[in-house]
Amino acid sequence: MSNSAAAANASLPFPELPKTNEGKRICQVVKVRPEHLEEYKKVHANVWPEVLGALRKAHVVDYSIHFFEPHNLLIAHMRYIGNDFKKDMAGIAENEATKRWWALTDGMQESFVPGATGSESGPGWWLNAEEVFRMEG
Amino acid sequence: MSNSAAAANASLPFPELPKTNEGKRICQVVKVRPEHLEEYKKVHANVWPEVLGALRKAHVVDYSIHFFEPHNLLIAHMRYIGNDFKKDMAGIAENEATKRWWALTDGMQESFVPGATGSESGPGWWLNAEEVFRMEG
Repeated sequence: MSNSAAAANASLPFPELPKTNEGKRICQVVKVRPEHLEEYKKVHANVWPEVLGALRKAHVVDYSIHFFEPHNLLIAHMRYIGNDFKKDMAGIAENEATKRWWALTDGMQESFVPGATGSESGPGWWLNAEEVFRMEG
Repeated sequence: MSNSAAAANASLPFPELPKTNEGKRICQVVKVRPEHLEEYKKVHANVWPEVLGALRKAHVVDYSIHFFEPHNLLIAHMRYIGNDFKKDMAGIAENEATKRWWALTDGMQESFVPGATGSESGPGWWLNAEEVFRMEG
């Protein structure tokens, strides 16, 4: 964990979520506009604590994003440990800091989702990848 | 967990590895040849227990593979919880079942690694994606 991530975690309101590998693993992909890659990395070195807090409140844990250079892809992986995914995602979308975060980051990206307009509304922004193999921890 | 994965886990020799989110998250990508996708999914619904055992012995846990259709990509995510990655990977490469597994699956794939010849030898087969964000569990 980076120091900034550690600092952010320290201020989060849900420190007691189980650190296990339970839950559903979700993988989603979006394209990063190459001219915004460095800016994307920079803001992700210091994601706002409110944004991380909204994710945890929505039962999203163990979240990583990787950059795959040959196709300029951002690959997100997370585990969802709640039991009402639709409701939890709606909760994230209502978070004011998250709305500002999306306004900042959507413009750095291109979506693979047909008809996508942004993270806040529409059919989705990050496109889900299909799980073909899973080995539990 | 699928029933087949559960059955495989039951026979593995390392059931006591910590089920936490410790360790380094690794993301690797390879292209699947579209004509082999269904076969790839089929064999991954029943990965040989010896292959899973070799991974665990090498301190690889919490392993998922997702298929990303727009670019025909296989995206692997795993956590490495050991402390000698090179040695552990060499251990996997010496496992006879894993060698047979790679002989089966390499032909279904195309590598992004320059000069790649296969999983068993050469500069690598799956190409690493760079971590740009990490939220611990």
